[in-house]
Amino acid sequence: MKIIRTVHEMQETALSLLTDNKTIGFVPTMGFFHEGHLALMEQAKKDNDIVVSSIFVNPLQFGPSEDYEQYPRDEEKDIIHAEETGADVLFIPDTQDMYPRKMVITLDVTDRVNVMCGRSRPGHFQGVVTVLAKLFHIIQPTKTYFGRKDAQQVAVVDALIEDLNFPMELIALPTIREQDGLAKSSRNVNLRQEEREEAPWIYKALENGRQLVVDGEKNPDIVVKEVLDTINCYTSGKIDYVELLSYPDLQPVSVIEQQVILATAVYFEGARLIDNLLFDKNGEIAKRLK
Amino acid sequence: MKIIRTVHEMQETALSLLTDNKTIGFVPTMGFFHEGHLALMEQAKKDNDIVVSSIFVNPLQFGPSEDYEQYPRDEEKDIIHAEETGADVLFIPDTQDMYPRKMVITLDVTDRVNVMCGRSRPGHFQGVVTVLAKLFHIIQPTKTYFGRKDAQQVAVVDALIEDLNFPMELIALPTIREQDGLAKSSRNVNLRQEEREEAPWIYKALENGRQLVVDGEKNPDIVVKEVLDTINCYTSGKIDYVELLSYPDLQPVSVIEQQVILATAVYFEGARLIDNLLFDKNGEIAKRLK
Repeated sequence: MKIIRTVHEMQETALSLLTDNKTIGFVPTMGFFHEGHLALMEQAKKDNDIVVSSIFVNPLQFGPSEDYEQYPRDEEKDIIHAEETGADVLFIPDTQDMYPRKMVITLDVTDRVNVMCGRSRPGHFQGVVTVLAKLFHIIQPTKTYFGRKDAQQVAVVDALIEDLNFPMELIALPTIREQDGLAKSSRNVNLRQEEREEAPWIYKALENGRQLVVDGEKNPDIVVKEVLDTINCYTSGKIDYVELLSYPDLQPVSVIEQQVILATAVYFEGARLIDNLLFDKNGEIAKRLK
Repeated sequence: MKIIRTVHEMQETALSLLTDNKTIGFVPTMGFFHEGHLALMEQAKKDNDIVVSSIFVNPLQFGPSEDYEQYPRDEEKDIIHAEETGADVLFIPDTQDMYPRKMVITLDVTDRVNVMCGRSRPGHFQGVVTVLAKLFHIIQPTKTYFGRKDAQQVAVVDALIEDLNFPMELIALPTIREQDGLAKSSRNVNLRQEEREEAPWIYKALENGRQLVVDGEKNPDIVVKEVLDTINCYTSGKIDYVELLSYPDLQPVSVIEQQVILATAVYFEGARLIDNLLFDKNGEIAKRLK
């Protein structure tokens, strides 16, 4: 596995791979790899000639009071994991190289962000799509891989690729969970012990909500209330939101009669956790994004 | 020459050219070709295996009170000219195909637009960079060609490519002029006869200003006043602006001691005309953009 630390070398390497007609599968990450990241790399390995992953904790997508400094980092372990998983290139740029000056051109997200995490993290998705546009131009992937755990991010990247005609395919893979159901996340290490014990209730609460839909419930408010009540009853976390929206356009629905997302974010002392389920009008878990 | 009218076919064609390792020179235009456009295509032909030009009068870059409807169009003649000039592909998408829905993702320009045309055309450059990002992704050029007449556009595209790491090179070619000095522009046909006769004074005024710098003047205000006075004296046009700024970052200067642009926009009844000169601290015309 080749480790590349400059934008210039990465872009030259990608151009030379493209000249050789290699397909590139790209897994953008903020590092501190868990099985979710590695599953993306494994799938990219199956689908493409070359797998490129990037590690970049992007300051642009963190608000001033957010956990940019506390975001967990372990480059040494990440390198070992990526190599074991079969990545061909690991791109680890520094901030100065990615943002050498105040940007004149940025990307703006005008929809799909006034809900869910976009509401409590203003500017977050602008930062995400701006860094992704840069990474996509540097790496020029054939396919790019994201985890469904960040479902709103997937919806926004779907719009990014479609609206700006990026010549690539978005692949979104299912959330990887711990044995007890907790969605794997780099931030889980920052949970206190009792919080870690309560955290699986987030997934259970979403499953309770989905079960209502399986049983015939069509009213989103009743489903949302079930999730709220479960999380409030079994955890000490402070709920940021529980929302049920159409997917991937993330619009409110009055009756569940299409593909929807049931999503939540919960603040614990140690970390803010997110999770979601994507299902159809019968409560069946969605296989595709659209 | 191949004429392509859908985004899908253009993107597939470009991908297949890239698979064959062809270099692509791209000349984005709004059509109604004059020698300025054709000079860009000729240079693209010299530099690349394949020349792609596009014709798209982009509604996103016109304000509500601007001349989107009046912008001159002559597709039939354009096709003949492009073919004669040696273009290999002419891409003529329709608006519905370029903007099939309200965009979720747009581009924003946060600097280099609070001056010159950006001030009198709010939103114009956002529209320009958004459509260019789309076209760059559809056509994936190796090099892209612009005329220096639209100098602020060149400065903004320079920032677009640099800030977002587009894997391509920007080539900006000198303004092509009529015998009497008037900068060639598709909009010139909309001038009334007496306006057409006065219009060459715009270039003469800029040249008068530059001559002061050649003669040793370092004060931008005196240079700007010379241009204002000349245009006001010899034309019936209403001056939108005359500005002298650093280039390509378009910041005000108090003393002329670097590469600068001396630029103007003048409203006539029939059309708003722009022109500029790019020169160094000694008044010598610049050969390069930076």
